[in-house]
Amino acid sequence: MADQHETQAMRRALQAARDACVRTFPNPRVGCVLLSSDGTVLATGAHRGAGTAHAEADALARAGTRADGSTAVVTLEPCNHQGRTGPCSEALVAAGVRRVVYGQADPNPQAAGGADRLRAAGIDVETGLLADEAAELNREWTFAIRTGRPFVTWKYAASLDGRSAAADGSSRWITSRESRADVQAFRARCDAILVGTGTALADDPRLTLRDDEGAPLPYDQQPLRVVLGERDLPVDARLNDDTAPTLRLRTRDVPSALAELGAREIRHVWLEGGPRLAGAFAAHGLVDEVVGYVAPLLLGRGDAALTEAGVGTVADAHRLTITDVTVVGADVRITARPHDRED
Amino acid sequence: MADQHETQAMRRALQAARDACVRTFPNPRVGCVLLSSDGTVLATGAHRGAGTAHAEADALARAGTRADGSTAVVTLEPCNHQGRTGPCSEALVAAGVRRVVYGQADPNPQAAGGADRLRAAGIDVETGLLADEAAELNREWTFAIRTGRPFVTWKYAASLDGRSAAADGSSRWITSRESRADVQAFRARCDAILVGTGTALADDPRLTLRDDEGAPLPYDQQPLRVVLGERDLPVDARLNDDTAPTLRLRTRDVPSALAELGAREIRHVWLEGGPRLAGAFAAHGLVDEVVGYVAPLLLGRGDAALTEAGVGTVADAHRLTITDVTVVGADVRITARPHDRED
Repeated sequence: MADQHETQAMRRALQAARDACVRTFPNPRVGCVLLSSDGTVLATGAHRGAGTAHAEADALARAGTRADGSTAVVTLEPCNHQGRTGPCSEALVAAGVRRVVYGQADPNPQAAGGADRLRAAGIDVETGLLADEAAELNREWTFAIRTGRPFVTWKYAASLDGRSAAADGSSRWITSRESRADVQAFRARCDAILVGTGTALADDPRLTLRDDEGAPLPYDQQPLRVVLGERDLPVDARLNDDTAPTLRLRTRDVPSALAELGAREIRHVWLEGGPRLAGAFAAHGLVDEVVGYVAPLLLGRGDAALTEAGVGTVADAHRLTITDVTVVGADVRITARPHDRED
Repeated sequence: MADQHETQAMRRALQAARDACVRTFPNPRVGCVLLSSDGTVLATGAHRGAGTAHAEADALARAGTRADGSTAVVTLEPCNHQGRTGPCSEALVAAGVRRVVYGQADPNPQAAGGADRLRAAGIDVETGLLADEAAELNREWTFAIRTGRPFVTWKYAASLDGRSAAADGSSRWITSRESRADVQAFRARCDAILVGTGTALADDPRLTLRDDEGAPLPYDQQPLRVVLGERDLPVDARLNDDTAPTLRLRTRDVPSALAELGAREIRHVWLEGGPRLAGAFAAHGLVDEVVGYVAPLLLGRGDAALTEAGVGTVADAHRLTITDVTVVGADVRITARPHDRED
């Protein structure tokens, strides 16, 4: 059984993982706390993205020789494979760690086996401490590792009467400034922002993250921009600029597009439309989460956020469960997940 | 200045008014508490609808001779006119009441003048105690008295993607059982439930209040059912049954229909659609409140809740302010009021 010091350390490790980085593409977010035998915190580490130290290595480096005889409390099972960095299991053994407590078991078959390796080296291993919170930390990553395709969040913005544009096609701005800033924060946590060629041609969107002054963040901090569909974009389309990477998927088949993104280790896709593309995702059962911004205005005409989702009658509707309702600026943000996937 | 006993008595009077009756058509909700000179509560009264005693008369009857020398704390300025019951101002004078404290001044020119009459009789009169809460108690009634037309609440139910029906026209059930019960509670507080002939013909609705077993409440507890439009309904339409009164307004003009309802002393209309009628109300600026039930399902096709509201571009949208967001069963209820009428 984990003791009180270890439970506190796990909370600290979870917070370290959250604070370190909003996106660690294509890796999971991980935090690690090293405890002395009397429960004192020796060091706290976290992972900050591909090519940087894993959380365990980060904590071990901070602790130095004090790690000898310590307990490592880690949010995710230490990896056992040689990637861009060495296996964490070996690093923990080499540092003289006596006990390892972790939260979530590694769902990645390539990286799993860490616990067995540690036990084989005589280390006391305990699993499942605050496992739900640890799993929540990497909900989309875990989903992607298990299914081989990215987790898809469909975002829409609409008036109270369900319209994402007015009769003349205008949509700036249906939602409030605060909602648009909220969308930026969500985009920053995703690996890719996806639109169809219809939206790309109609709106010429940037799909980039910007700082408070409106300047784009550095190229390597931008999520991948993905444009799905067969039509060509103009050479001077904003999605062709060099502010962020852009991937063209010249297909209309949603499952094959997601498989391609999965192969590129994209874990979380932020789907921004248009309505027909979102409908195709829904029709294939490939919307894993809906984030809707409902703005308090009435339009009476104009396009809905979603079309052609393969539903003819109410009994066949795609049914979801609301998981969060938050007032954002003048609007309401509603988050929902498919009925059968409320985890 | 009202003292602490009087403030407490006003809270008690407000609660008595709320508890007495959800609907006092066509009268306002009023509560009254009589206090002895040392602040003891002598009696609490409330109005229970047309033809029953006013709140002051109710409290005076309960107090009997103890009312002599008492203070009357009333949520609304005592009336000064002879209606179905005598003027409350006279009753208070006759009972020997020494002081009157009230919340909201009477906006009804026919009934006002009570305070002056009381002062003329030598009674100490104070106004404005908890005036905001007192006005909120009769928000729709006050609006109707001031404008000569009923306050209009437009209710809709829609999927996350803004559809009130599926592609085949089915709409049972988009929202959850709890939301439908919530709608019943709202209907019970209104004087009239209004639909267009399109909805009447398409859905053959009952528009009646029902008890927990589904049986209709007595005829005299039912709001007026109003059908707007020129088309005939079948003789066997449910709106032609004898479970509740029904008014046919054979016009397509929304302002004239509301004027007619105002002349019939209807203070609060619960507008249930359809989309074109709701759009006509919105286009005329005659939606005073929106109560929307957003259900967590995706349809992709089907009618929106609102059409043809006179808006061509986002800048011309009917803008509202969200005043309440509540999770009801599986759904979200959003309440909003026009931007310029947030009182």
